[in-house]
Amino acid sequence: MITDFQDWARSRQVRIETSLQTLLPPANVAPERLHDAMRYTVLGGGKRVRPLLAFAAGELSNADEERVTIAAAAVELIHAYSLVHDDLPCMDDDVLRRGKPACHVAYDEATALLAGDSLQSLAFQLLGEYRLADTPQMQLEMVKRLAQAAGSRGMAGGQAVDLASVGESLTLPELEFMHIHKTGALIRAAVILGARCGGSLNESQSTGLDHFAKCIGLAFQVVDDVLDAEATPATLGKTAGKDAENNKPTYVSILGAGRARELAEELRCDAYQSLEVFGTMAGRLRQVTDFIIRREF
Amino acid sequence: MITDFQDWARSRQVRIETSLQTLLPPANVAPERLHDAMRYTVLGGGKRVRPLLAFAAGELSNADEERVTIAAAAVELIHAYSLVHDDLPCMDDDVLRRGKPACHVAYDEATALLAGDSLQSLAFQLLGEYRLADTPQMQLEMVKRLAQAAGSRGMAGGQAVDLASVGESLTLPELEFMHIHKTGALIRAAVILGARCGGSLNESQSTGLDHFAKCIGLAFQVVDDVLDAEATPATLGKTAGKDAENNKPTYVSILGAGRARELAEELRCDAYQSLEVFGTMAGRLRQVTDFIIRREF
Repeated sequence: MITDFQDWARSRQVRIETSLQTLLPPANVAPERLHDAMRYTVLGGGKRVRPLLAFAAGELSNADEERVTIAAAAVELIHAYSLVHDDLPCMDDDVLRRGKPACHVAYDEATALLAGDSLQSLAFQLLGEYRLADTPQMQLEMVKRLAQAAGSRGMAGGQAVDLASVGESLTLPELEFMHIHKTGALIRAAVILGARCGGSLNESQSTGLDHFAKCIGLAFQVVDDVLDAEATPATLGKTAGKDAENNKPTYVSILGAGRARELAEELRCDAYQSLEVFGTMAGRLRQVTDFIIRREF
Repeated sequence: MITDFQDWARSRQVRIETSLQTLLPPANVAPERLHDAMRYTVLGGGKRVRPLLAFAAGELSNADEERVTIAAAAVELIHAYSLVHDDLPCMDDDVLRRGKPACHVAYDEATALLAGDSLQSLAFQLLGEYRLADTPQMQLEMVKRLAQAAGSRGMAGGQAVDLASVGESLTLPELEFMHIHKTGALIRAAVILGARCGGSLNESQSTGLDHFAKCIGLAFQVVDDVLDAEATPATLGKTAGKDAENNKPTYVSILGAGRARELAEELRCDAYQSLEVFGTMAGRLRQVTDFIIRREF
């Protein structure tokens, strides 16, 4: 089963990588430097957790994998844009990302800013351009959903709260609010968009999937905090221990590493439970859940 | 006729302002500071040239004004986001915008960055959320069109070329390439989206409108360069003479102010000609054309 999952994950990672290579503007088309920076940012790195979630969620609704690939690429472009902007000096000021110099270090700040902006536009271009859902109306709802997840009441809003929290002591509910937005919203969108590429879900399935998506979004961040606190730059591929250094509240700083790991495990159980309504159709999604929560890097 | 136009323009400016006030997240909803910065950036300023173009273009296809208002708001949000990001220190480094401190001065750089990011997301959210076209399929094409106009082969790409051109001597075709992307793409999108809110255009109408949109987009920039070279901060509402100071190539620096004004007039004639296929339906669009090209501020 583990080997089977690894094969599945690897083939989807290759698929999304190949697809992103084609969907991104070629580096020899003007403006070349900008296109080069966009490709540098997106390609050749990352675990592609959001695409894996989208592919697994697509299995719940028998979604065509071609469609899911485009939807997953759109989500991944939003994720990549957020990393470029988050690393900028006026934000988290980080120089290392996925084991390589951050975009603004490899290029310059203006190019990184514009690369992020352009990646966001490209994500929505894909959702407008390709046929991804059974009806155009359902596809417009995908546009809305991704935009909400990315915007001020989603990912960007979470980042704003995160920045405001540096040096502040947050309560657990405040920390949760921040992460539900900063990381959770886009992870949720990945799950929902993947499933929307296929047939309609009934109400209890929709509710179950949405609750699953919330749990996995939060669990992802809890695990991220644990790994950030424990890892070295070599294992993490980005600057380790940044949160502690920046005096940022994390699940580890509030709960301690042991309790944070327990919390991740509780969220995993909760996530599993909300998938029960799908029976065996959710086998892959359970595997991705384990992959996210029990990862070591 | 002129008075009639002024009344029409004023009422549409009020309409778009009122609409943006409602469409933007309230400043008392978390994250408050981010929402406040988004509202500060978008509301209470600007000539709303793009919305006026959208409203006038909507008359060509008998578009419902409620629909055009939302589509125009989406275009204006993209425009507003681009101004916030362009003013950042790593880009044009400008402290004054529409007679007020730029967003990163009034708030801080990180907030300005996230406000711009969130405004872009909100633009696409509107296009996914409201019914704007006769069919959802046509509306998906609006999503694609706006995304292309905003992205690396549109506005953001033009800004990248603009930044790379500081201190360089550009030829007229190179300058044109830059502006067709930086300013022209979004102005074109405003025209096209406005018209798409109504009934379908036939092929010669579509071709005519697209050519009109190209002309007006370029003319807008030519006039902008003339005004920037001649104006004072008080009349312009932003730092005047920045282009010369930054050693940026402009229509004035390449052609001289007299020839630049002539070019604007030639583009005006070309724009008028391409509207002939619409007959009297294009009356309003001709007035907006004059308003843009013969403005003094």
